[in-house]
Amino acid sequence: MANWKNLDTLNSYNELKGVAHVNLVDVMTGENGAKRVKNYSVPMAAGLSYNYAAKEVDDNVLEALSKLAKEAELSEKYEALLSGEVINTGEKRMVLHQLTRGQLAADVIADGVNKREFYVKEQKRIADFANKVHSGEIANAKGEKFTTVVQIGIGGSDLGPRAMYLALENWAKRTGNFKMEAKFISNVDPDDASAVLNSVDVAHSIFILVSKSGTTLETLTNESFVTDALRKAGLDASKHMIAVTSETSPLAKSDNYLEAFFMDDYIGGRYSSTSGVGGAVLSLAFGPDVFAQFLDGAAEEDKLATEKDMLKNPAMLDAMIGVYERNVLGYDSTAVLPYSQGLSRFPAHLQQLDMESNGKSVNRFGEPINYVTGPVIFGEPGTNGQHSFYQLLHQGTDIIPLQFIGFKNSQLQNDVNIQDSTSQQKLCANVAAQIVAFACGKKDENANKNFKGGRPSSIIIGDELNPKSLGALLAHFENKVMFQGFVWNINSFDQEGVQLGKVLAKKVLAHETDGALAEYSKLLGI
Amino acid sequence: MANWKNLDTLNSYNELKGVAHVNLVDVMTGENGAKRVKNYSVPMAAGLSYNYAAKEVDDNVLEALSKLAKEAELSEKYEALLSGEVINTGEKRMVLHQLTRGQLAADVIADGVNKREFYVKEQKRIADFANKVHSGEIANAKGEKFTTVVQIGIGGSDLGPRAMYLALENWAKRTGNFKMEAKFISNVDPDDASAVLNSVDVAHSIFILVSKSGTTLETLTNESFVTDALRKAGLDASKHMIAVTSETSPLAKSDNYLEAFFMDDYIGGRYSSTSGVGGAVLSLAFGPDVFAQFLDGAAEEDKLATEKDMLKNPAMLDAMIGVYERNVLGYDSTAVLPYSQGLSRFPAHLQQLDMESNGKSVNRFGEPINYVTGPVIFGEPGTNGQHSFYQLLHQGTDIIPLQFIGFKNSQLQNDVNIQDSTSQQKLCANVAAQIVAFACGKKDENANKNFKGGRPSSIIIGDELNPKSLGALLAHFENKVMFQGFVWNINSFDQEGVQLGKVLAKKVLAHETDGALAEYSKLLGI
Repeated sequence: MANWKNLDTLNSYNELKGVAHVNLVDVMTGENGAKRVKNYSVPMAAGLSYNYAAKEVDDNVLEALSKLAKEAELSEKYEALLSGEVINTGEKRMVLHQLTRGQLAADVIADGVNKREFYVKEQKRIADFANKVHSGEIANAKGEKFTTVVQIGIGGSDLGPRAMYLALENWAKRTGNFKMEAKFISNVDPDDASAVLNSVDVAHSIFILVSKSGTTLETLTNESFVTDALRKAGLDASKHMIAVTSETSPLAKSDNYLEAFFMDDYIGGRYSSTSGVGGAVLSLAFGPDVFAQFLDGAAEEDKLATEKDMLKNPAMLDAMIGVYERNVLGYDSTAVLPYSQGLSRFPAHLQQLDMESNGKSVNRFGEPINYVTGPVIFGEPGTNGQHSFYQLLHQGTDIIPLQFIGFKNSQLQNDVNIQDSTSQQKLCANVAAQIVAFACGKKDENANKNFKGGRPSSIIIGDELNPKSLGALLAHFENKVMFQGFVWNINSFDQEGVQLGKVLAKKVLAHETDGALAEYSKLLGI
Repeated sequence: MANWKNLDTLNSYNELKGVAHVNLVDVMTGENGAKRVKNYSVPMAAGLSYNYAAKEVDDNVLEALSKLAKEAELSEKYEALLSGEVINTGEKRMVLHQLTRGQLAADVIADGVNKREFYVKEQKRIADFANKVHSGEIANAKGEKFTTVVQIGIGGSDLGPRAMYLALENWAKRTGNFKMEAKFISNVDPDDASAVLNSVDVAHSIFILVSKSGTTLETLTNESFVTDALRKAGLDASKHMIAVTSETSPLAKSDNYLEAFFMDDYIGGRYSSTSGVGGAVLSLAFGPDVFAQFLDGAAEEDKLATEKDMLKNPAMLDAMIGVYERNVLGYDSTAVLPYSQGLSRFPAHLQQLDMESNGKSVNRFGEPINYVTGPVIFGEPGTNGQHSFYQLLHQGTDIIPLQFIGFKNSQLQNDVNIQDSTSQQKLCANVAAQIVAFACGKKDENANKNFKGGRPSSIIIGDELNPKSLGALLAHFENKVMFQGFVWNINSFDQEGVQLGKVLAKKVLAHETDGALAEYSKLLGI
């Protein structure tokens, strides 16, 4: 059994605080810098690599972090999670999202069911369904093929699947794997559903209603928008809609859906992209084979995360460097900067994944803790960010650690050569240049043009953003967040912080308010 | 002449630090909270109001802030800016974006030209051009109307205009003001241009090339993508493209464009949405009248910002509360949370506006300063954010000030009634509930379900997001950022922090690298 202790009770944490800090400008300048770029790199799955040369670490810091990772028993805790221990202590649930893509420990049985078999069974059911939609065996009332899939969901049922869809759309178009366009409805703002419905041909659209509990108010409200639109078009809504939900949800056995596919309480929303929540929409959009490759990439990365040597375990290493930056160096936020247009919404997904998992002030036993936990996560694709908020990153008064992501090749592989280089070369040149500019800075007598440097970053580099590398990328960050939660001794798998707002919103709608809430309600016309 | 002094040399700043802090839970609970919501509100232009009841201020703090605003001579500095003083000290330029929408001081003459007249002249030229495109007088080679407009630009030539277009798209569709769809190409990633070009009918598309200098590499590269696509379709590129640039740029007199419209060096990219940079695309998409209403809203808000009494000046008040949160209370970031799908990219625009303007470590004379300046800005539309990163905002270890934005009515005015309320009512109920949940929290014996509260927010409330209220909203934040720059004694109008990356990227492309940069270049396949 693993020992669950608060970070500030671990001896190696105090030791870590005593290790001399690294001067990034010094270590990254000249030949030493070149050596670091060569050495401070660890392979990930699917040909990716995690390079941390431009982080404020050296062999001494890394040794201390490695010791801390051992004392915090990160490997043992991951093993416990994989074995089906109740890691989500708040909700008293196992945490099984890794099981949707592979099996790294003994069989996990819950509710009398082998959970790996259950997830695989649902994947196969989804694959069969998607194949029938693509072949036209499942079609609209006129026997015409569906051409568009629309996901209705919010939070984890939206951000992850949407980011994954956008990440593969161009790749799929180039490689002949593009089957159907996907759209997403999430916000309870009526303008969201209305605008999406105005943009699709409902007669040839299939809708996926995603809600684990079957009671998410935003999602059920948006379902009504869709059924209204289908009815107005003279269509039978139940022939245009499927559900992804838990077996115990009211949606599971309803006649309102063509078919229902199942997930369970052991998969949190923000970790559900590899379950049916992502599986249905991605299998319909790109075909089941593409979804299977995506799962393979994630499975390989999960396996790498079992490596006990931190220096060979990219997720653990990334997690530990993040803890060092947050708890020792005192940095409050992290920017995620993908140099790939396909990853345009990947930062928004990581924002949920990280901030909802680790934005906690009590430990896994519900006791207050005395150290900071999850940082603010934000980001936009480079090179757009360079022409925007990078000014503050370079010359602002706070230091903000950076997570770059870059690929050697573009997805559509259509390019132009201007001033002796392609756009893809310019893109890659920019990310290389930024890392060095942030780390090393540049002295200038004019203080306004002076760059202090010392701004740490890491980069994940791959050949191409494709299903397998995307799966690896996703799992890397899921596992990083998990390891950080272990170090902080918090429960990364519940989200009690979203409950109070829900309760108060219901009161407003029931006109059961007083004080400030009554006044705000008036101002907003309710 | 205004006195430009560092913040920490002002007496009232030290006084402010001595004022007792406000316990937000205490003051926002019960009848006192209701009173605050009624009293701590200031009207903005276009029917908007700025409500700061849930900020950590009381009459004592406000008095101290008002004193600081006076000692920092904010009104005098704004007046100097409006009068054409060289406020952008780094680049030795005037700052004239307010002049694109109104005139609040004596005529500003630069380069022998009355600048207000110049901006109005360009607006009229754009309006004439847009009207001719809409009437079909300007059409493609076959005499067919253009149906799509595609803006090619990056940074301020992209984020602001794109956010404004998205903010008005649904409103325009409902009100019959929708003339043409707009798309945007920005990233140097070849997948961006390729995907946009694949999604439009180039034969019926008109392209706007936006670059003040005419030398922005990303934009010129993307222009080549477009001219290639037009050529491949057998079309004359020069008949499908206009330029928005400065009169001295190489684009100004080129035969490659149907027409060129002009801006100048006195309008920074991130402040250019009300110049031709936003004017061309918005006038083409929605008609010149809609763009004129947008300018009117901004002009009214600019006028409000001249009010010397901080409590009647929403931009100044917002700015001063932000300085208090940053420099006295020590908060590092601010979340922008619009409860309006139309504002989906407004946070990304504010991220540039704020972080690029005030992410500085030297004062306007190029001397290092000893206090923090601009915060990190991030955000996503509510209710999506509620199901994502709000967990950290409610229960994380750091306090993050929040800027809510909400409207009583939706834009498309298409809605459903579920569980006795419309989606718009649910949306508004949620934002009211969140403000109170963040401010007041809720005690629970289970520490995991305990909400400490004390998390400050303000809200801008309006009836509807339309051209006029959008203009007011945009100008409010522009002026807020300007006032904060004045308080911090920094130059909010240059961006030297983006230069080093450009220089190093050129070296990479020329293979003139060594050390770490050479190694990163290798890893990225250049």
